[in-house]
Amino acid sequence: MAFEYKIVRRVEFGDTDMAGIVHHAVYFHYMEAAETAFFRSLGLSLASRQAKPLVGWPRVHCECDFFAPLQFEDEVEIHLLVAKKKSKTLTYAFRLHQLKGPERREVARGRVVTVCVTLVDGRMKAIKIPKAIGDKLQAAPTRLLV
Amino acid sequence: MAFEYKIVRRVEFGDTDMAGIVHHAVYFHYMEAAETAFFRSLGLSLASRQAKPLVGWPRVHCECDFFAPLQFEDEVEIHLLVAKKKSKTLTYAFRLHQLKGPERREVARGRVVTVCVTLVDGRMKAIKIPKAIGDKLQAAPTRLLV
Amino acid sequence: MAFEYKIVRRVEFGDTDMAGIVHHAVYFHYMEAAETAFFRSLGLSLASRQAKPLVGWPRVHCECDFFAPLQFEDEVEIHLLVAKKKSKTLTYAFRLHQLKGPERREVARGRVVTVCVTLVDGRMKAIKIPKAIGDKLQAAPTRLLV
Amino acid sequence: MAFEYKIVRRVEFGDTDMAGIVHHAVYFHYMEAAETAFFRSLGLSLASRQAKPLVGWPRVHCECDFFAPLQFEDEVEIHLLVAKKKSKTLTYAFRLHQLKGPERREVARGRVVTVCVTLVDGRMKAIKIPKAIGDKLQAAPTRLLV
Repeated sequence: MAFEYKIVRRVEFGDTDMAGIVHHAVYFHYMEAAETAFFRSLGLSLASRQAKPLVGWPRVHCECDFFAPLQFEDEVEIHLLVAKKKSKTLTYAFRLHQLKGPERREVARGRVVTVCVTLVDGRMKAIKIPKAIGDKLQAAPTRLLV
Repeated sequence: MAFEYKIVRRVEFGDTDMAGIVHHAVYFHYMEAAETAFFRSLGLSLASRQAKPLVGWPRVHCECDFFAPLQFEDEVEIHLLVAKKKSKTLTYAFRLHQLKGPERREVARGRVVTVCVTLVDGRMKAIKIPKAIGDKLQAAPTRLLV
Repeated sequence: MAFEYKIVRRVEFGDTDMAGIVHHAVYFHYMEAAETAFFRSLGLSLASRQAKPLVGWPRVHCECDFFAPLQFEDEVEIHLLVAKKKSKTLTYAFRLHQLKGPERREVARGRVVTVCVTLVDGRMKAIKIPKAIGDKLQAAPTRLLV
Repeated sequence: MAFEYKIVRRVEFGDTDMAGIVHHAVYFHYMEAAETAFFRSLGLSLASRQAKPLVGWPRVHCECDFFAPLQFEDEVEIHLLVAKKKSKTLTYAFRLHQLKGPERREVARGRVVTVCVTLVDGRMKAIKIPKAIGDKLQAAPTRLLV
């Protein structure tokens, strides 16, 4: 059962704003990219068009602390950890590090709570995480979540 | 039958990039906002969740010419004109003007071709523009499209 | 001295994702639009190109709780409250309500901490909020922040 | 002298809209990512913060033809070709292919004209492409541009 995943992205021009740094909303796209890749690494999809029932993962909470800015062409590692696994929700912790050659500098920490839903009469309804998904995930050891 | 519509938007901080100007991809959001408002002004929706059959308007072409940059907090008028109306497609011409008090400065021109589609077995299929929509729209007079 | 501001926005097509609802990162753009409008209502700019020294407001923290989804063409009221005013930082609380005719439904709450910075040798450095700005703002009464 | 470059990207969740496909404005971000990577492959930067004089590449024109939609998690190859090299402008042609195992399907074609500028008194002014940049680039053979 998996509890972490890492991806590396390079800051795109369109990720920046007039302050010359990555816009804060973009960090949530970076975290979502890590979440998507984590699911894919387990043979799952965050939004499979084939799954029955159709399952989605809307956010019920998201947050980010920013320690240092990111700039165009910076390499950033996004480290996802499963912080909590409940019957209907998953909570992720994210650590973002700027990579410069051998150096690593923590630039942000995030936290995202997602709820497993399906569509009933066109409306989202929270459901228990399907066993085929839940069996592949577990919360990370506490020492990693400090 | 309508053939034009105008909206005014103010440039948001998140619309800018590190060059201090509005990112070029954002202009297509501005144009889409005018298109959405144009439909709404006619009692229509670009993506009604109630319509049967479900009708959508994906783009088959879009383009923009940029004459001068836009900056944070600039007011910009987006003028939509129906340039062509065919059985399955609508072509829009857009004129973007920066507004500064009484001054108007043309900053960009756009062109967008959309095709009317519905979903058949989960795939988009081009259809004739429904009469309830087509009857409300017409191409603008040629003199306005120069 | 002002402590709150409200704007109303309509959900754009490009604000949605394949789940048919507004993407969570977009809420931070909505909140920023309210912050920008709040400053502008006070004769200030979040990013004035004329101010000396140049002052900016990067985020050190942002978060959002989501209670119900927003969809295309929904009207949403974004209510900004100044939650805290410190010497170098401003904390905002946001309440987002979906408006449907006379009905109001709370769909999200946000919180954003910004720090006042200027540029020294091309790097952002936290500074005391300039008096010309700080004199116009105050924290909202506690009863409004519950 | 280089005249082409290819990158492969995977469609992110946030790239999609409520129609379940990649929003048309996002294609311009994909093309810009290829342009950025092309410059980087030549030891250049689209927006170097060290270069003197500071050089930027705003768009004067951009366009895209869409042949088939892209969906979440699709792999897409973005192939950049230098279509024209003039004294102050570069024109790129882009071919976008959806990759599915061994299959390749052309889904879009783009064209972007950028102009080399520097900042004079805070305003962008077109300049000749610096030799250090121009010497590394050339227009692609005509047969590739059909």
